[in-house]
Amino acid sequence: MADAYLVGAGQSDYGSFPNESYRSLFRAAYEDAAESAGGLEPGDVDEAYVGTLGVGGRQLGLPGPAVTEHVGLRGVPCTRVENACAASGYAIRSAVMAVKSGMADLVLAGGFEVMTDASSEATRYWLGVSGETEWERMAGTTFSGVYAQMADAYLREHGAARESLSRVAVKNHANGAKNPHAHLGFPCTLEDAESAPVVADPLTLYHCCPTTDGAAAVLVASEEAAASFDRRVRVAGVGASTDRVGLFQRDTYTSIPASRRAATAAYRMAGVDPTDLDFAEVHDCFAIAELLAYEDLGLCERGGAVGMIDSGATEIDGRLPVNTSGGLKSKGHPIGATGAGQAVEAFEQLTGDAGDRQLSAPQRGLTHNVGGSGGAAVVHVFETEDADPPAAADGGTSA
Amino acid sequence: MADAYLVGAGQSDYGSFPNESYRSLFRAAYEDAAESAGGLEPGDVDEAYVGTLGVGGRQLGLPGPAVTEHVGLRGVPCTRVENACAASGYAIRSAVMAVKSGMADLVLAGGFEVMTDASSEATRYWLGVSGETEWERMAGTTFSGVYAQMADAYLREHGAARESLSRVAVKNHANGAKNPHAHLGFPCTLEDAESAPVVADPLTLYHCCPTTDGAAAVLVASEEAAASFDRRVRVAGVGASTDRVGLFQRDTYTSIPASRRAATAAYRMAGVDPTDLDFAEVHDCFAIAELLAYEDLGLCERGGAVGMIDSGATEIDGRLPVNTSGGLKSKGHPIGATGAGQAVEAFEQLTGDAGDRQLSAPQRGLTHNVGGSGGAAVVHVFETEDADPPAAADGGTSA
Repeated sequence: MADAYLVGAGQSDYGSFPNESYRSLFRAAYEDAAESAGGLEPGDVDEAYVGTLGVGGRQLGLPGPAVTEHVGLRGVPCTRVENACAASGYAIRSAVMAVKSGMADLVLAGGFEVMTDASSEATRYWLGVSGETEWERMAGTTFSGVYAQMADAYLREHGAARESLSRVAVKNHANGAKNPHAHLGFPCTLEDAESAPVVADPLTLYHCCPTTDGAAAVLVASEEAAASFDRRVRVAGVGASTDRVGLFQRDTYTSIPASRRAATAAYRMAGVDPTDLDFAEVHDCFAIAELLAYEDLGLCERGGAVGMIDSGATEIDGRLPVNTSGGLKSKGHPIGATGAGQAVEAFEQLTGDAGDRQLSAPQRGLTHNVGGSGGAAVVHVFETEDADPPAAADGGTSA
Repeated sequence: MADAYLVGAGQSDYGSFPNESYRSLFRAAYEDAAESAGGLEPGDVDEAYVGTLGVGGRQLGLPGPAVTEHVGLRGVPCTRVENACAASGYAIRSAVMAVKSGMADLVLAGGFEVMTDASSEATRYWLGVSGETEWERMAGTTFSGVYAQMADAYLREHGAARESLSRVAVKNHANGAKNPHAHLGFPCTLEDAESAPVVADPLTLYHCCPTTDGAAAVLVASEEAAASFDRRVRVAGVGASTDRVGLFQRDTYTSIPASRRAATAAYRMAGVDPTDLDFAEVHDCFAIAELLAYEDLGLCERGGAVGMIDSGATEIDGRLPVNTSGGLKSKGHPIGATGAGQAVEAFEQLTGDAGDRQLSAPQRGLTHNVGGSGGAAVVHVFETEDADPPAAADGGTSA
């Protein structure tokens, strides 16, 4: 199977931008990605995948062509991909397939969302559409409520304290404070997180990501096309899985099985195991989601997430830094952009371009993007071209 | 580049089904496809692409996983694809890429839409979202209005009579009357079409497709996987293109440039030209769209579409039958299902399974699926395994 590479990655600022449109935000991401790739000529990009949930409903049909045309890619085949909050993670996966199929050499994969101009009621509706419609959204369950049920179940099952959730917020805000693109790019204390208003018990405001405007994009190239770019990050592994959309329909509230299956597939394809990772960007839409991710991605044993966050192992100077970007919590969560934004962080870390957040010569990182409360998940393993052979090399059989 | 094959295809009935849900309709299509493939075992399908616009908004997030889980594919990676009315045409294209990438062996590609439970106002909104938002939908332009502008411009440019539009309706209803799955499966006369109420001048009711509930699905297999199925239809060519989403933003009202580019790419990949086709399913959301398709797909010269329809060349017993299924006009247009439904017709024609509509041993057919008023288009060329070498064989260089 032919290799695929990231050769450029970029994003808009994440935040609240009443004077920007979805088109202008996507353009900012595209231009940043093109610049990071050393510039693009007309005709270089021959395929595009664009992720968006369509919050607010402004361009629910053909939003992909609407933004690719706006950045000068009129005529380029463009597919809008939607898997709720995992939209652009799946867009990158489709781009990787397009390259591996031999039908495209350089593919744009990205996403966007404009959320801050919606009313609270509209935002609840739009976040709710990623849950199950009849028995979650229409029954009145909010998205925070769904994750609160997971948090409550997890804390009870493991006899853990809410403080561990707050430590996720403190860590991610500390990282986000070093990210010039972050929406909430300021530090917070344990006291801030603990004493913040409760959104959905046990989750306080600091255990919830913000609603954010933003866009992100990466350029995925075939091996041949990648050779003409200065910077290349290999897409070593890709894995995806789905599940029942409603949390109430699943067997467990304290794990996201789709994440588990997606990670297994990605590790197998990359021929690595979690001990081979130097960092991870995980889907922390709510603080509990980061703890579940540690376990579902195999970064620790089941029940080990509390010890992992409490020990500082996932801090930026820890054993396995998680969410150096600030994560969804501090960097922000413009739904359709989030998966691509995670890949931007991976690209920057692996090319030494992460500024104040730069890790010391990382060779391999993972991104983990979840749709809804786990109805879909997608995991990528990215590595430098000269990455050390993985500890658990087994030939890297394909997923 | 590895070959891809259709090994099964199926659909629900198309119509108005107040007692069905999007899940039950998709299940009907999936089960029909599985049965046409000789049955599937659990685990056979390892990837899915589901197209839907989301009319009515019931499950705007994760509708793909919601329906694949419902048919027993829980856990299978599923990507929701949306390119307005071209959603499932693009879903099939993604499935072909997945197979050619080597990352999947058997892929489900389909789509669905439930439209008839929406109010007239809601339907106008949902069809409008496939146009440009700010200067078309919000300015009050309806989707019929957009195509009426194209019809008006075309009739003026070529000095043609509205009667030619009506002949499209008569032909497609004649075909649809032979299709047990058709929504409007009855014949109509030229007088019916001409005297029907005007929807948007010059388009009468019979020049417009209905709003329809329905689902359709195909199974796309790698060469290796296809070998274990009884029936195989080769995906010889795939082409796609996009354009500015708003009609008013384009240079021409009398051609859909995205269709033209998509067809060129599909013919090139298949190594064929339009004279090698035995039939075509084209996107006749409005009668004018079928005439534009004749020209954009190269089935005739520019301006030749009127002569082509008037001469009967595209009737079921004509030189090049078009829309033997009844087309969007008579079979119906459940938006997300339409592209896959076209491929179902191609599969049935090429495997001799088209019942009363069966053509005499066709070897090669085309499907043409348009999103919005031409913001996206996708074209497939399907052929039997023993298709004659194309007249214009040029080695079939890849798109």
